[in-house]
Amino acid sequence: MRSLITLTSDFGEGSPYVAQMKGTLLSICREVDILDISHNIRPQDIRQGALVLADATPRFPAGTIHIAVVDPGVGTSRRILYAEIATQRYIAPDNGLLSGLTLKHEPTRLISIEDASHWLPQKSHTFHGRDIMAPVAARLAAGLAPEQLGPTINEFVKLDWPPVLRTTSQVQGQVLLADSFGNLIANIGRRDLERLGELRTLSIRCGGQRIDGIVTTYGAALPGEVVALVDSQGRLEIAIVGGNAARDLGLVPGDPVVVSAQ
Amino acid sequence: MRSLITLTSDFGEGSPYVAQMKGTLLSICREVDILDISHNIRPQDIRQGALVLADATPRFPAGTIHIAVVDPGVGTSRRILYAEIATQRYIAPDNGLLSGLTLKHEPTRLISIEDASHWLPQKSHTFHGRDIMAPVAARLAAGLAPEQLGPTINEFVKLDWPPVLRTTSQVQGQVLLADSFGNLIANIGRRDLERLGELRTLSIRCGGQRIDGIVTTYGAALPGEVVALVDSQGRLEIAIVGGNAARDLGLVPGDPVVVSAQ
Amino acid sequence: MRSLITLTSDFGEGSPYVAQMKGTLLSICREVDILDISHNIRPQDIRQGALVLADATPRFPAGTIHIAVVDPGVGTSRRILYAEIATQRYIAPDNGLLSGLTLKHEPTRLISIEDASHWLPQKSHTFHGRDIMAPVAARLAAGLAPEQLGPTINEFVKLDWPPVLRTTSQVQGQVLLADSFGNLIANIGRRDLERLGELRTLSIRCGGQRIDGIVTTYGAALPGEVVALVDSQGRLEIAIVGGNAARDLGLVPGDPVVVSAQ
Repeated sequence: MRSLITLTSDFGEGSPYVAQMKGTLLSICREVDILDISHNIRPQDIRQGALVLADATPRFPAGTIHIAVVDPGVGTSRRILYAEIATQRYIAPDNGLLSGLTLKHEPTRLISIEDASHWLPQKSHTFHGRDIMAPVAARLAAGLAPEQLGPTINEFVKLDWPPVLRTTSQVQGQVLLADSFGNLIANIGRRDLERLGELRTLSIRCGGQRIDGIVTTYGAALPGEVVALVDSQGRLEIAIVGGNAARDLGLVPGDPVVVSAQ
Repeated sequence: MRSLITLTSDFGEGSPYVAQMKGTLLSICREVDILDISHNIRPQDIRQGALVLADATPRFPAGTIHIAVVDPGVGTSRRILYAEIATQRYIAPDNGLLSGLTLKHEPTRLISIEDASHWLPQKSHTFHGRDIMAPVAARLAAGLAPEQLGPTINEFVKLDWPPVLRTTSQVQGQVLLADSFGNLIANIGRRDLERLGELRTLSIRCGGQRIDGIVTTYGAALPGEVVALVDSQGRLEIAIVGGNAARDLGLVPGDPVVVSAQ
Repeated sequence: MRSLITLTSDFGEGSPYVAQMKGTLLSICREVDILDISHNIRPQDIRQGALVLADATPRFPAGTIHIAVVDPGVGTSRRILYAEIATQRYIAPDNGLLSGLTLKHEPTRLISIEDASHWLPQKSHTFHGRDIMAPVAARLAAGLAPEQLGPTINEFVKLDWPPVLRTTSQVQGQVLLADSFGNLIANIGRRDLERLGELRTLSIRCGGQRIDGIVTTYGAALPGEVVALVDSQGRLEIAIVGGNAARDLGLVPGDPVVVSAQ
């Protein structure tokens, strides 16, 4: 059976850099299936990349190889990691990109990719996605044992994730991201909400808005209404029915979100 | 042979929601080929989604499974359909999304997807593309008989499509869509045009413009000229050679288009 | 083994025209792998398309079939080419789109695609990507010999590429393109630079900026600094660390770039 390899980057949809990675990969191992997760990560936004990887990659078949390239430190001394986290495999620069995933599961294997014999012979200083990561993924797909890539390590870079403050009657977090619909996702999980009381009785404050009650889905309110709900990953979401909450409420990642029992 | 599955949505190119659907699908049935039709449908624009499905999906090999997710009613009582239309298979919310296709061919099989045993065990209220549609497509690809999905039904939601008014010397329709070049496609077909006379003799009025004669291709006029032609789907198209007609003429879907014999 | 086919066009990411090409292709030959290189070529920008093809396609496995559709002359008398260049195969309109590739390697085989028996029976005048090029690629993938496509030819259209002026102490070229990060790529290669002296001693002038010394990678300077480096294809690149040089310096393709020994 073909190995499955996914790509995530900040190169932009339709970037020829992505195509160069795919061509390189397929030239080393033809029998793979390549899928794009997203190339729409904002340039150099490691945090957004980390969130996308954490949301999307655990859904893939066990053993899938995920290459992630958001790499402002390319060509410096930053390491490149091979990591096994839960059932998935990752190749990424050691800059925090995997640290959304490791909030839930510690890596079961962590290797610093150092053996240049598995890379392209002519390595650039500015495109290790093509010259190191794609070849390494192709060789793993072709059966190379991960321990051939370099030494096992124990430490890796983790981002500081925004804290969630919990009292008996309140949870305070912040907006993590806005999705392509402008829905605002907060770093407050279903369990945090349920601890405060029945969801339909909770009160949410965010950016001058007060929302009374968490509904189950968009269709439970009228077009144009601001609603709160639990998103498909189990997190608090603030949306405008049929509209774009991020744009219309002027909210951005980092803005505070407070949920209170009434 | 692998089953072929396509995806169409309003999630945006590079949306991690699309990746979640693909991961879910491949985790249930690994031996499929997945292709994207478009994720650039405007948010909640069922009509645009219906047009894209009608234009693109009939070109695919018989038996291809097309998943379409433009689903503002997600989580409400709206049904999810499995439909066989001409040689293709579809999974989509019952909100009109398939009703561009059914202008040409009535469904030969129509099922309301209701048996939850084929879905993800933990179903969200806001992402049935991932939790219901992708798993159902994967199970069909793995050989599940469609009648296992739920009861056969006879009715489904159809959009009101804009009328075409025909007299002996005139056809009146409207702009259906603007493509990525800004070319304006009208709901007036080749047969309607030919009925009025030779194409090069017809006169087209649209948004204050009058175009004399339908040409065969862009290269038949000079850069900057407004031309009318028959598009690659057999519909009247208004274009600016080397330019963007939608932007430069300020026309949008719904604007009237009148074709007259001279 | 499956044939590999890539697509490049100016249709826009998520364009249903791309999906129509893929459906057509797969309906003729199901056992192919289709990959997108880019559909983000600016409308009718043959030069940008030629650069993307030259950068990305040589990375693919030998024998890959690349379809390229940037085709303002569609439906006119312009020819459609089948070309073999280095290890790759190409199908493209004869308008210069392949002439970035042929700067390095002359075609080893060049055929004018003329035998309509291999095309869709109903050919439009405005979408030869779907009606001629996709079917031809599918038939080649299925084993058709290229000489069946039409007559061998010797001439094809080449773009005028901007000149590079070399003196003993200076090289003068211009900006070729800005990538998705806003990095500006010039038509000045590593050998031209090395001829002038050690890279860290050279001086670059472009758009009122003077940059002293070529660094190896972005991390060698501070965020916000304007740097010059050798890009991953071996060309002079001007970048702003963590920023967007094209936007912030106001530079566009065609602007002059001068490199001097100090």
